[in-house]
Amino acid sequence: MQAIDLNADLGESYGPWSMGDDDTMMDIVSSANIACGGHAGDAATMHSALSTAVQKGVVAGAHPGFDDKPGFGRRRIPLSSREIEQLIASQLGTLSGVAGLAGASIRYIKPHGALSNWAAVDAGVSRAIAAAVKAAFPDLAVLAISGTQLEIESKKAGLETYSEIFADRGYGDDGNLVPRSEPGAMIHNPSEACERLQRFFETGKMPTVSGGAVSLAADSICIHGDSAHAVAMALEVRQMIVDNNISIASFK
Amino acid sequence: MQAIDLNADLGESYGPWSMGDDDTMMDIVSSANIACGGHAGDAATMHSALSTAVQKGVVAGAHPGFDDKPGFGRRRIPLSSREIEQLIASQLGTLSGVAGLAGASIRYIKPHGALSNWAAVDAGVSRAIAAAVKAAFPDLAVLAISGTQLEIESKKAGLETYSEIFADRGYGDDGNLVPRSEPGAMIHNPSEACERLQRFFETGKMPTVSGGAVSLAADSICIHGDSAHAVAMALEVRQMIVDNNISIASFK
Amino acid sequence: MQAIDLNADLGESYGPWSMGDDDTMMDIVSSANIACGGHAGDAATMHSALSTAVQKGVVAGAHPGFDDKPGFGRRRIPLSSREIEQLIASQLGTLSGVAGLAGASIRYIKPHGALSNWAAVDAGVSRAIAAAVKAAFPDLAVLAISGTQLEIESKKAGLETYSEIFADRGYGDDGNLVPRSEPGAMIHNPSEACERLQRFFETGKMPTVSGGAVSLAADSICIHGDSAHAVAMALEVRQMIVDNNISIASFK
Amino acid sequence: MQAIDLNADLGESYGPWSMGDDDTMMDIVSSANIACGGHAGDAATMHSALSTAVQKGVVAGAHPGFDDKPGFGRRRIPLSSREIEQLIASQLGTLSGVAGLAGASIRYIKPHGALSNWAAVDAGVSRAIAAAVKAAFPDLAVLAISGTQLEIESKKAGLETYSEIFADRGYGDDGNLVPRSEPGAMIHNPSEACERLQRFFETGKMPTVSGGAVSLAADSICIHGDSAHAVAMALEVRQMIVDNNISIASFK
Repeated sequence: MQAIDLNADLGESYGPWSMGDDDTMMDIVSSANIACGGHAGDAATMHSALSTAVQKGVVAGAHPGFDDKPGFGRRRIPLSSREIEQLIASQLGTLSGVAGLAGASIRYIKPHGALSNWAAVDAGVSRAIAAAVKAAFPDLAVLAISGTQLEIESKKAGLETYSEIFADRGYGDDGNLVPRSEPGAMIHNPSEACERLQRFFETGKMPTVSGGAVSLAADSICIHGDSAHAVAMALEVRQMIVDNNISIASFK
Repeated sequence: MQAIDLNADLGESYGPWSMGDDDTMMDIVSSANIACGGHAGDAATMHSALSTAVQKGVVAGAHPGFDDKPGFGRRRIPLSSREIEQLIASQLGTLSGVAGLAGASIRYIKPHGALSNWAAVDAGVSRAIAAAVKAAFPDLAVLAISGTQLEIESKKAGLETYSEIFADRGYGDDGNLVPRSEPGAMIHNPSEACERLQRFFETGKMPTVSGGAVSLAADSICIHGDSAHAVAMALEVRQMIVDNNISIASFK
Repeated sequence: MQAIDLNADLGESYGPWSMGDDDTMMDIVSSANIACGGHAGDAATMHSALSTAVQKGVVAGAHPGFDDKPGFGRRRIPLSSREIEQLIASQLGTLSGVAGLAGASIRYIKPHGALSNWAAVDAGVSRAIAAAVKAAFPDLAVLAISGTQLEIESKKAGLETYSEIFADRGYGDDGNLVPRSEPGAMIHNPSEACERLQRFFETGKMPTVSGGAVSLAADSICIHGDSAHAVAMALEVRQMIVDNNISIASFK
Repeated sequence: MQAIDLNADLGESYGPWSMGDDDTMMDIVSSANIACGGHAGDAATMHSALSTAVQKGVVAGAHPGFDDKPGFGRRRIPLSSREIEQLIASQLGTLSGVAGLAGASIRYIKPHGALSNWAAVDAGVSRAIAAAVKAAFPDLAVLAISGTQLEIESKKAGLETYSEIFADRGYGDDGNLVPRSEPGAMIHNPSEACERLQRFFETGKMPTVSGGAVSLAADSICIHGDSAHAVAMALEVRQMIVDNNISIASFK
């Protein structure tokens, strides 16, 4: 491996409320997944995040989620396939419109929260997402969690597809993320996150909560932008990648 | 005059609530101003209105308004110029994204309600609208109320600009619409609306509430889609135009 | 049976959008289940519905639902028990506050849509609803679908509890309503609705979709206020009750 | 002066977004103005703030504002008097309902942001607020900015009325707050805030931006809970009050 992308969820403030430190994080990552006004974000926060991305040379992606700010897009809203298509097309459109104003362009899509988790295991949901991208924004790449239905269906739809792994989330033996409600879901210690990545870089396999390891493909590493120690974690992960003589660059 | 456009505000339902009869109105008009999720509309209603427009050969325009569903975009929200730019770019984007999914394309923008009224008289607001269109969707035309600041600023910005008059709204001697809160604002009688248009076709001047008349330029005639007798009014106005040997066609 | 209550879901308009004909329906029913701003309603529509109820002598109840207007409260939002308690307390509070302004008082609660369906079969959800009522509005009665968990848990919590049956919904052999997505869920023909009620009045059993019949207890009959022929259905059901020499009166 | 109240705006988080440090601030103030879901807050944040108030013996008040989260209630929404009454009654109701669940009770109302500023100078707006309180929650006190129309109209309506001054806001010679958009609006330096209060305690007059001083009545001192240095400011102001041998206690 000579290069890998580093991505984080950013632009997740809302009106007077701020979340995370977009400015600092955009000095660390190569790709920014920007909220589209569904689970977070409004026209002003999108504009601000996109402007910062342009200024810092970070590649901008769309991070659509359920239209549920109080639940931050982490509750599954039982939408039909048709409603998911409409949600994806409208949120990608919103962010693209603001990108035009900010002089930015959107290069990929990565679903958020409960929508992402649902798509990971449900081919129908993934097909709806891929169909909406294909119809409305066919030039966008899809950034999917490695090994998921979204990765499979996105490729089937003929979309440019990239795989991501998580530096700070636990994995099950099936390659799925441990749900946030279960022990081992979040890795808060940067050293632990770096050790796991080191093992992945050396073996192509990620440690699992059971003590095993699972093979994963990785075009990108996700780090979280909204936790208390996000910046510290991001800096250590970045340094660890650099120390492995891997350069950090967008997959686009 | 050999041809004129006929436009109406459509796609103004929301979730389980419906407003107007989009299906019938799209048999009558040549241009549909479709709500973008601000004062009305959601991804499903946008998709439905855009699909009907494609099917019936009606030209689709964006109808952005203040993000205020309870007030239906008829209350002036005191936004800054920058916030107006962001509102316009994001709402145009939302509708464009859904249009991609519906196989439709957006050809023009016409602001709604209190935003439109504000832009009519305020050059700064109009400049913000024009700047957002220019930056994010430069191929869109602007449909402006004849004689307003929006018409002036849109032309100054180099945008393709068209003028509209209202069949069913009263005019003041300065060419501005009589505010909805004042007597004479709305014309409910189709015969009266048709008589006024007849006079306009013959003289280029529209009768005013004071008994005078004001010169107006008209590329399009607006009829309302949401009033109780919208369809009846629209049919009479359409017939009256045809009776004058004027064909009804989009300005695009 | 000498008297029975007749209830309908009313106050389900929102901002500029109207739903149903509250004014006419309140001439027909004895109890009005009024939306609380979650799945429908806002301060103005609540005030209007409550004022009409006062004027027509109709008993007002609260009709809380998931905070999901685009989905009209018909999609299950996966809330925790604690979140359900908070939703119920806040929506009852909202309606009660507006009732104070309108000179009305709220006498009972009946959950709406997906929240009602969930409570019907889930004791934990029903306990959360009952706990919130008990803590925040202990004088309110609970109007529950006959035979459901909500009826059981509401009684266990020591709340005054009444049972309702539906004139225009199909029943399964277990006494649960046929889901709206399945055949036989809705009864659109007033004669058919009246025949079913007649059989219930005579036997205490309601016909089911399988051709059988199920025993139900009934303090109230629910008729829908938002369907196209709601008023016609309501009038026929009312007449049919009167023809059975049963008077129509609130359970409170 | 032997005792004075110390109040702050709290409970202004929303869903996943947090604002201020309610927990620490409730160790410092005697009264908490809690957002009611309009400009900020949701059922969960209200419940949390009210529970903390109960636990720490802080008196809870309602802090209603325009229903405008993206604008944080700081933009004037042009409502009619009737709409203001409905807004006030519904928001007081919402908070009261949640208070019932939390074992708390609401003792006063203090309007927020643009609604408060409008009421300060507009007797009609103040009458609408007072009328709603009188009709729906007549036992609540009104906490009004000293010398404003709200103070006058609230007293006229026969409501228990208390006056507040601001430790960290600049005053004009007419006794009105300097608008946030103008220089001198906010006082960020705790020492400066304390010096001004000291002068007020000694003379009954507050320094103004012009270099003069204006007579104010004070039952309560407001300190802001949402600024970066809110806690530091609050602690210094509290200490300064104690150093003057004035005890800190609710006006209720």
